[in-house]
Amino acid sequence: MRPDKRIRIKREPQRGRYDRETIDLILDEALLCHLGFEIDGQPYVIPTLHARVGDKLYVHGSAASRMLRHLAGGVRVCVTVTLFDGLVLARSVFNHSVNYRSVVLLGEATLVEDDEKLAALHALTEQLAPGRWEEARQPTAKELKATWILSLPIEEVSAKVRNGPPEDEPEDEDLPVWAGVVPVHLAAEPSEYDWKRVRDGRLGPA
Amino acid sequence: MRPDKRIRIKREPQRGRYDRETIDLILDEALLCHLGFEIDGQPYVIPTLHARVGDKLYVHGSAASRMLRHLAGGVRVCVTVTLFDGLVLARSVFNHSVNYRSVVLLGEATLVEDDEKLAALHALTEQLAPGRWEEARQPTAKELKATWILSLPIEEVSAKVRNGPPEDEPEDEDLPVWAGVVPVHLAAEPSEYDWKRVRDGRLGPA
Repeated sequence: MRPDKRIRIKREPQRGRYDRETIDLILDEALLCHLGFEIDGQPYVIPTLHARVGDKLYVHGSAASRMLRHLAGGVRVCVTVTLFDGLVLARSVFNHSVNYRSVVLLGEATLVEDDEKLAALHALTEQLAPGRWEEARQPTAKELKATWILSLPIEEVSAKVRNGPPEDEPEDEDLPVWAGVVPVHLAAEPSEYDWKRVRDGRLGPA
Repeated sequence: MRPDKRIRIKREPQRGRYDRETIDLILDEALLCHLGFEIDGQPYVIPTLHARVGDKLYVHGSAASRMLRHLAGGVRVCVTVTLFDGLVLARSVFNHSVNYRSVVLLGEATLVEDDEKLAALHALTEQLAPGRWEEARQPTAKELKATWILSLPIEEVSAKVRNGPPEDEPEDEDLPVWAGVVPVHLAAEPSEYDWKRVRDGRLGPA
Protein backbone atom coordinates (compact mmCIF):
# COMPACT_ATOMS: atom_id res chain seq x y z
CA MET A 1 0.00 0.00 0.00
CA ARG A 2 1.32 3.50 -0.76
CA PRO A 3 2.30 5.44 2.39
CA ASP A 4 -0.17 8.26 1.73
CA LYS A 5 -2.92 5.66 1.37
CA ARG A 6 -1.95 3.92 4.59
CA ILE A 7 -2.73 6.94 6.72
CA ARG A 8 -5.72 8.24 4.78
CA ILE A 9 -8.93 8.15 6.86
CA LYS A 10 -11.35 5.89 5.00
CA ARG A 11 -14.25 5.51 7.38
CA GLU A 12 -15.96 8.80 8.23
CA PRO A 13 -13.42 10.65 6.05
CA GLN A 14 -14.81 14.02 7.11
CA ARG A 15 -13.21 13.37 10.50
CA GLY A 16 -9.73 13.14 8.99
CA ARG A 17 -7.21 15.88 9.76
CA TYR A 18 -3.85 16.10 8.07
CA ASP A 19 -2.47 19.43 9.26
CA ARG A 20 0.46 19.38 11.64
CA GLU A 21 -1.12 21.96 13.94
CA THR A 22 -4.00 19.61 14.80
CA ILE A 23 -1.71 16.59 14.96
CA ASP A 24 0.82 18.31 17.23
CA LEU A 25 -1.85 19.60 19.61
CA ILE A 26 -3.13 16.06 20.13
CA LEU A 27 0.34 14.56 20.54
CA ASP A 28 1.30 17.29 23.00
CA GLU A 29 -1.84 17.05 25.13
CA ALA A 30 -1.95 13.28 25.57
CA LEU A 31 0.00 11.67 28.38
CA LEU A 32 -0.16 8.10 27.14
CA CYS A 33 0.19 6.47 23.77
CA HIS A 34 -0.22 2.94 22.49
CA LEU A 35 2.67 1.39 20.60
CA GLY A 36 1.87 -1.33 18.07
CA PHE A 37 4.35 -3.76 16.60
CA GLU A 38 4.36 -7.28 15.26
CA ILE A 39 6.43 -10.34 16.07
CA ASP A 40 6.05 -13.66 14.24
CA GLY A 41 2.67 -12.73 12.81
CA GLN A 42 1.22 -11.62 16.13
CA PRO A 43 0.46 -7.91 16.64
CA TYR A 44 1.13 -6.43 20.09
CA VAL A 45 -0.14 -3.14 21.51
CA ILE A 46 1.38 -1.72 24.69
CA PRO A 47 0.68 1.51 26.54
CA THR A 48 3.68 3.74 27.07
CA LEU A 49 4.81 7.38 27.29
CA HIS A 50 5.65 9.68 24.41
CA ALA A 51 6.83 13.22 23.73
CA ARG A 52 7.18 15.27 20.58
CA VAL A 53 10.25 17.35 19.80
CA GLY A 54 9.81 19.17 16.51
CA ASP A 55 9.28 16.60 13.79
CA LYS A 56 10.16 13.60 15.92
CA LEU A 57 8.10 11.55 18.29
CA TYR A 58 9.92 9.86 21.12
CA VAL A 59 8.42 6.80 22.75
CA HIS A 60 9.53 5.22 25.99
CA GLY A 61 10.49 1.81 24.74
CA SER A 62 11.45 -0.10 27.83
CA ALA A 63 8.08 -1.81 28.03
CA ALA A 64 8.58 -3.09 24.50
CA SER A 65 11.57 -5.15 25.47
CA ARG A 66 10.40 -8.09 23.43
CA MET A 67 10.26 -5.85 20.39
CA LEU A 68 13.58 -4.18 21.09
CA ARG A 69 15.33 -7.49 20.79
CA HIS A 70 14.19 -7.53 17.16
CA LEU A 71 15.24 -3.96 16.58
CA ALA A 72 18.47 -4.17 14.68
CA GLY A 73 18.10 -1.57 12.00
CA GLY A 74 14.59 -0.38 12.59
CA VAL A 75 11.15 -1.87 12.83
CA ARG A 76 7.74 -0.87 11.49
CA VAL A 77 5.54 0.38 14.29
CA CYS A 78 2.34 2.32 14.83
CA VAL A 79 1.98 4.86 17.61
CA THR A 80 -1.59 5.84 18.42
CA VAL A 81 -2.59 8.63 20.77
CA THR A 82 -6.22 8.99 21.81
CA LEU A 83 -7.90 11.77 23.75
CA PHE A 84 -11.35 10.78 24.93
CA ASP A 85 -13.58 13.86 24.96
CA GLY A 86 -17.12 12.70 25.46
CA LEU A 87 -19.92 10.17 25.35
CA VAL A 88 -22.28 10.94 22.51
CA LEU A 89 -25.73 9.75 23.51
CA ALA A 90 -28.11 9.74 20.57
CA ARG A 91 -31.81 8.99 20.43
CA SER A 92 -31.07 5.70 18.67
CA VAL A 93 -28.57 3.10 19.83
CA PHE A 94 -27.10 3.03 16.33
CA ASN A 95 -26.07 6.68 16.43
CA HIS A 96 -24.34 6.48 19.79
CA SER A 97 -20.73 7.47 19.49
CA VAL A 98 -17.83 9.04 21.33
CA ASN A 99 -16.11 12.36 20.85
CA TYR A 100 -12.38 11.90 20.56
CA ARG A 101 -9.21 13.19 18.99
CA SER A 102 -6.70 10.59 17.87
CA VAL A 103 -3.43 10.48 15.98
CA VAL A 104 -2.05 7.47 14.15
CA LEU A 105 1.64 7.63 13.30
CA LEU A 106 3.23 4.93 11.17
CA GLY A 107 6.93 4.57 10.66
CA GLU A 108 10.19 2.87 11.31
CA ALA A 109 11.30 3.17 14.91
CA THR A 110 14.98 3.51 15.69
CA LEU A 111 16.75 3.49 19.02
CA VAL A 112 17.82 6.85 20.39
CA GLU A 113 21.43 7.11 21.56
CA ASP A 114 23.85 9.45 23.33
CA ASP A 115 23.07 13.17 23.53
CA GLU A 116 19.75 12.77 21.79
CA LYS A 117 18.72 10.31 24.50
CA LEU A 118 19.15 12.91 27.22
CA ALA A 119 17.10 15.42 25.23
CA ALA A 120 14.42 12.81 24.58
CA LEU A 121 14.21 11.81 28.23
CA HIS A 122 13.93 15.48 29.13
CA ALA A 123 10.99 15.79 26.76
CA LEU A 124 9.34 12.62 28.09
CA THR A 125 9.67 13.87 31.66
CA GLU A 126 8.32 17.32 30.84
CA GLN A 127 5.39 15.76 28.98
CA LEU A 128 4.35 13.94 32.14
CA ALA A 129 4.88 16.89 34.51
CA PRO A 130 6.24 20.17 33.15
CA GLY A 131 9.04 21.61 35.27
CA ARG A 132 9.84 18.26 36.82
CA TRP A 133 13.16 17.80 35.00
CA GLU A 134 14.67 20.73 36.86
CA GLU A 135 13.16 19.75 40.18
CA ALA A 136 14.04 16.06 40.39
CA ARG A 137 17.49 14.52 40.35
CA GLN A 138 18.62 14.15 36.77
CA PRO A 139 19.72 10.79 35.40
CA THR A 140 23.15 9.33 35.86
CA ALA A 141 25.02 7.76 32.95
CA LYS A 142 24.04 4.35 34.27
CA GLU A 143 20.37 5.27 34.48
CA LEU A 144 20.46 6.69 30.96
CA LYS A 145 21.94 3.46 29.72
CA ALA A 146 19.09 1.51 31.31
CA THR A 147 16.51 3.66 29.51
CA TRP A 148 15.30 2.67 26.06
CA ILE A 149 13.81 5.35 23.88
CA LEU A 150 12.53 4.99 20.34
CA SER A 151 12.33 7.74 17.77
CA LEU A 152 9.91 8.07 14.85
CA PRO A 153 9.73 10.79 12.23
CA ILE A 154 6.35 12.56 12.23
CA GLU A 155 5.75 12.04 8.54
CA GLU A 156 3.32 9.24 7.84
CA VAL A 157 0.63 10.53 10.14
CA SER A 158 -3.02 11.49 10.35
CA ALA A 159 -5.49 12.61 12.97
CA LYS A 160 -9.15 11.80 13.38
CA VAL A 161 -11.50 14.04 15.28
CA ARG A 162 -15.14 13.62 16.24
CA ASN A 163 -16.76 16.44 18.12
CA GLY A 164 -20.17 18.02 18.42
CA PRO A 165 -23.61 16.66 19.27
CA PRO A 166 -25.16 13.32 18.31
CA GLU A 167 -26.36 12.99 14.74
CA ASP A 168 -29.84 11.59 15.01
CA GLU A 169 -31.95 10.43 12.12
CA PRO A 170 -34.67 12.98 11.23
CA GLU A 171 -37.39 10.47 12.13
CA ASP A 172 -35.91 10.07 15.64
CA GLU A 173 -35.85 13.77 16.53
CA ASP A 174 -39.14 13.67 18.38
CA LEU A 175 -38.51 10.52 20.40
CA PRO A 176 -38.77 11.20 24.15
CA VAL A 177 -35.13 10.29 24.74
CA TRP A 178 -32.52 12.59 26.24
CA ALA A 179 -29.74 13.09 23.72
CA GLY A 180 -26.55 15.03 24.05
CA VAL A 181 -22.90 14.85 24.88
CA VAL A 182 -21.41 13.91 28.23
CA PRO A 183 -18.01 15.60 28.08
CA VAL A 184 -15.24 13.65 29.79
CA HIS A 185 -11.64 14.50 30.54
CA LEU A 186 -8.69 13.19 32.48
CA ALA A 187 -8.83 14.79 35.92
CA ALA A 188 -6.50 14.77 38.90
CA GLU A 189 -7.74 14.19 42.41
CA PRO A 190 -7.59 17.64 44.00
CA SER A 191 -7.30 16.14 47.47
CA GLU A 192 -3.82 14.81 47.10
CA TYR A 193 -1.99 17.04 44.66
CA ASP A 194 -2.98 19.92 42.45
CA TRP A 195 -2.14 18.58 39.05
CA LYS A 196 -3.04 21.88 37.38
CA ARG A 197 -0.21 23.41 39.35
CA VAL A 198 2.04 20.66 38.04
CA ARG A 199 0.94 21.33 34.48
CA ASP A 200 1.58 25.04 35.00
CA GLY A 201 5.07 24.25 36.21
CA ARG A 202 4.41 25.39 39.76
CA LEU A 203 5.38 22.27 41.59
CA GLY A 204 5.14 21.27 45.18
CA PRO A 205 3.02 19.40 47.66
CA ALA A 206 -0.66 20.22 47.78
CA MET B 1 6.46 -18.30 20.29
CA ARG B 2 4.27 -20.42 22.55
CA PRO B 3 0.96 -18.74 23.43
CA ASP B 4 1.63 -18.77 27.15
CA LYS B 5 4.96 -17.09 26.52
CA ARG B 6 3.43 -14.45 24.32
CA ILE B 7 1.32 -13.01 27.09
CA ARG B 8 3.77 -13.51 29.96
CA ILE B 9 4.89 -10.15 31.46
CA LYS B 10 8.65 -9.98 31.00
CA ARG B 11 9.52 -6.46 32.08
CA GLU B 12 8.63 -5.73 35.71
CA PRO B 13 7.17 -9.25 36.04
CA GLN B 14 5.93 -8.49 39.56
CA ARG B 15 3.30 -6.30 37.91
CA GLY B 16 1.83 -9.20 35.95
CA ARG B 17 -1.64 -10.46 36.80
CA TYR B 18 -3.13 -13.58 35.29
CA ASP B 19 -6.35 -14.06 37.25
CA ARG B 20 -9.60 -13.50 35.45
CA GLU B 21 -11.02 -11.40 38.29
CA THR B 22 -8.38 -8.71 37.83
CA ILE B 23 -8.55 -8.96 34.06
CA ASP B 24 -12.34 -8.71 33.95
CA LEU B 25 -12.45 -5.72 36.30
CA ILE B 26 -10.11 -3.80 33.99
CA LEU B 27 -11.97 -4.80 30.84
CA ASP B 28 -15.30 -3.87 32.41
CA GLU B 29 -14.19 -0.48 33.75
CA ALA B 30 -12.51 0.84 30.62
CA LEU B 31 -14.59 2.63 28.02
CA LEU B 32 -12.06 2.54 25.20
CA CYS B 33 -9.68 -0.06 23.90
CA HIS B 34 -6.97 -0.07 21.25
CA LEU B 35 -7.17 -2.70 18.53
CA GLY B 36 -3.94 -3.74 16.88
CA PHE B 37 -3.64 -5.61 13.59
CA GLU B 38 -1.21 -5.89 10.74
CA ILE B 39 -1.55 -5.47 6.99
CA ASP B 40 1.30 -6.02 4.55
CA GLY B 41 3.95 -5.78 7.26
CA GLN B 42 2.59 -2.56 8.74
CA PRO B 43 1.02 -2.68 12.23
CA TYR B 44 -2.02 -0.47 12.86
CA VAL B 45 -3.53 0.54 16.19
CA ILE B 46 -6.97 2.13 16.33
CA PRO B 47 -9.09 3.23 19.27
CA THR B 48 -12.51 1.65 19.49
CA LEU B 49 -15.20 0.42 21.90
CA HIS B 50 -15.34 -2.97 23.58
CA ALA B 51 -17.49 -4.98 25.96
CA ARG B 52 -17.04 -8.26 27.71
CA VAL B 53 -19.72 -10.95 27.84
CA GLY B 54 -18.54 -13.92 29.84
CA ASP B 55 -15.45 -15.32 28.19
CA LYS B 56 -15.73 -13.23 25.04
CA LEU B 57 -14.60 -9.73 24.28
CA TYR B 58 -16.57 -7.85 21.65
CA VAL B 59 -14.92 -5.01 19.80
CA HIS B 60 -16.67 -2.46 17.62
CA GLY B 61 -14.97 -3.14 14.35
CA SER B 62 -16.38 -0.56 11.98
CA ALA B 63 -13.34 1.68 12.36
CA ALA B 64 -11.16 -1.22 11.29
CA SER B 65 -12.72 -1.34 7.85
CA ARG B 66 -9.35 -1.77 6.19
CA MET B 67 -8.73 -4.78 8.37
CA LEU B 68 -12.19 -6.23 7.91
CA ARG B 69 -11.61 -6.54 4.20
CA HIS B 70 -8.84 -9.01 5.05
CA LEU B 71 -11.00 -10.88 7.50
CA ALA B 72 -12.06 -14.03 5.71
CA GLY B 73 -11.63 -16.73 8.30
CA GLY B 74 -10.12 -14.81 11.17
CA VAL B 75 -7.18 -12.54 11.76
CA ARG B 76 -4.61 -12.24 14.56
CA VAL B 77 -5.24 -9.12 16.59
CA CYS B 78 -4.28 -7.60 19.91
CA VAL B 79 -6.78 -5.70 22.04
CA THR B 80 -5.26 -3.52 24.73
CA VAL B 81 -7.20 -1.75 27.43
CA THR B 82 -5.46 0.82 29.62
CA LEU B 83 -6.72 2.60 32.72
CA PHE B 84 -4.51 5.52 33.67
CA ASP B 85 -4.51 5.89 37.45
CA GLY B 86 -1.80 8.33 38.38
CA LEU B 87 1.41 10.21 37.77
CA VAL B 88 4.18 8.79 39.91
CA LEU B 89 6.59 11.61 40.72
CA ALA B 90 9.81 10.30 42.20
CA ARG B 91 12.79 12.19 43.58
CA SER B 92 14.84 11.13 40.56
CA VAL B 93 13.78 11.53 36.94
CA PHE B 94 14.69 7.90 36.35
CA ASN B 95 12.15 6.60 38.83
CA HIS B 96 9.24 8.61 37.48
CA SER B 97 6.45 6.35 36.38
CA VAL B 98 2.71 6.08 35.99
CA ASN B 99 0.17 4.06 37.86
CA TYR B 100 -1.99 2.09 35.48
CA ARG B 101 -3.95 -1.08 34.96
CA SER B 102 -3.80 -2.63 31.52
CA VAL B 103 -4.95 -5.79 29.80
CA VAL B 104 -3.43 -7.27 26.66
CA LEU B 105 -5.57 -9.82 24.86
CA LEU B 106 -4.19 -11.72 21.87
CA GLY B 107 -6.26 -13.87 19.62
CA GLU B 108 -8.02 -14.50 16.39
CA ALA B 109 -10.86 -12.10 15.77
CA THR B 110 -13.97 -13.32 14.01
CA LEU B 111 -16.98 -11.40 12.78
CA VAL B 112 -20.08 -11.61 14.92
CA GLU B 113 -23.32 -12.45 13.10
CA ASP B 114 -27.07 -12.72 13.63
CA ASP B 115 -28.47 -13.08 17.15
CA GLU B 116 -25.06 -12.81 18.74
CA LYS B 117 -24.62 -9.45 17.03
CA LEU B 118 -27.65 -8.01 18.77
CA ALA B 119 -26.41 -9.27 22.14
CA ALA B 120 -22.95 -7.88 21.45
CA LEU B 121 -24.30 -4.48 20.46
CA HIS B 122 -26.38 -4.48 23.61
CA ALA B 123 -23.25 -5.10 25.64
CA LEU B 124 -21.28 -2.41 23.79
CA THR B 125 -24.04 0.13 24.39
CA GLU B 126 -24.37 -0.73 28.06
CA GLN B 127 -20.59 -0.50 28.48
CA LEU B 128 -20.70 3.11 27.30
CA ALA B 129 -23.76 4.12 29.30
CA PRO B 130 -25.59 1.54 31.42
CA GLY B 131 -29.34 1.60 30.94
CA ARG B 132 -29.10 3.30 27.60
CA TRP B 133 -30.15 0.27 25.55
CA GLU B 134 -33.63 0.38 27.06
CA GLU B 135 -33.95 4.13 26.81
CA ALA B 136 -32.84 4.76 23.23
CA ARG B 137 -34.42 3.42 20.07
CA GLN B 138 -33.08 -0.05 19.43
CA PRO B 139 -31.45 -0.91 16.10
CA THR B 140 -33.36 -1.86 12.99
CA ALA B 141 -32.29 -4.84 10.89
CA LYS B 142 -30.68 -2.43 8.45
CA GLU B 143 -28.71 -0.68 11.18
CA LEU B 144 -27.56 -4.00 12.59
CA LYS B 145 -26.33 -5.00 9.16
CA ALA B 146 -24.29 -1.81 8.96
CA THR B 147 -22.60 -2.56 12.28
CA TRP B 148 -19.40 -4.61 12.35
CA ILE B 149 -18.51 -6.35 15.57
CA LEU B 150 -15.54 -8.59 16.23
CA SER B 151 -15.35 -11.33 18.83
CA LEU B 152 -12.28 -12.66 20.63
CA PRO B 153 -12.07 -15.43 23.20
CA ILE B 154 -10.62 -14.22 26.50
CA GLU B 155 -7.95 -16.88 26.66
CA GLU B 156 -4.54 -15.61 25.69
CA VAL B 157 -4.58 -12.68 28.06
CA SER B 158 -2.67 -10.96 30.83
CA ALA B 159 -2.95 -7.82 32.91
CA LYS B 160 -0.28 -5.49 34.19
CA VAL B 161 -0.80 -3.27 37.20
CA ARG B 162 1.37 -0.60 38.75
CA ASN B 163 0.09 1.10 41.86
CA GLY B 164 1.47 2.64 44.98
CA PRO B 165 4.05 5.34 45.66
CA PRO B 166 7.27 6.10 43.79
CA GLU B 167 10.16 3.77 44.41
CA ASP B 168 13.10 6.02 45.11
CA GLU B 169 16.68 4.91 45.50
CA PRO B 170 17.73 4.88 49.16
CA GLU B 171 20.32 7.58 48.46
CA ASP B 172 17.64 9.89 47.07
CA GLU B 173 15.29 9.71 50.03
CA ASP B 174 16.59 12.90 51.61
CA LEU B 175 16.61 15.03 48.50
CA PRO B 176 14.44 18.15 48.94
CA VAL B 177 12.09 17.11 46.16
CA TRP B 178 8.36 16.52 46.56
CA ALA B 179 7.57 12.94 45.66
CA GLY B 180 4.26 11.18 45.52
CA VAL B 181 1.41 10.13 43.34
CA VAL B 182 -0.96 12.43 41.49
CA PRO B 183 -4.03 10.23 41.07
CA VAL B 184 -5.89 10.78 37.82
CA HIS B 185 -9.17 9.45 36.54
CA LEU B 186 -11.61 9.96 33.71
CA ALA B 187 -14.16 12.50 34.86
CA ALA B 188 -17.36 13.85 33.36
CA GLU B 189 -18.12 17.56 33.30
CA PRO B 190 -20.74 17.95 36.00
CA SER B 191 -22.04 21.09 34.35
CA GLU B 192 -23.64 19.42 31.41
CA TYR B 193 -24.66 15.94 32.47
CA ASP B 194 -24.26 13.88 35.57
CA TRP B 195 -22.31 10.95 34.24
CA LYS B 196 -22.43 9.18 37.59
CA ARG B 197 -26.19 9.04 37.16
CA VAL B 198 -25.63 7.57 33.72
CA ARG B 199 -23.31 4.94 35.13
CA ASP B 200 -25.85 4.11 37.80
CA GLY B 201 -28.50 3.64 35.16
CA ARG B 202 -30.54 6.64 36.23
CA LEU B 203 -30.65 8.48 32.97
CA GLY B 204 -31.89 11.90 32.00
CA PRO B 205 -30.83 15.47 31.46
CA ALA B 206 -28.86 17.19 34.19
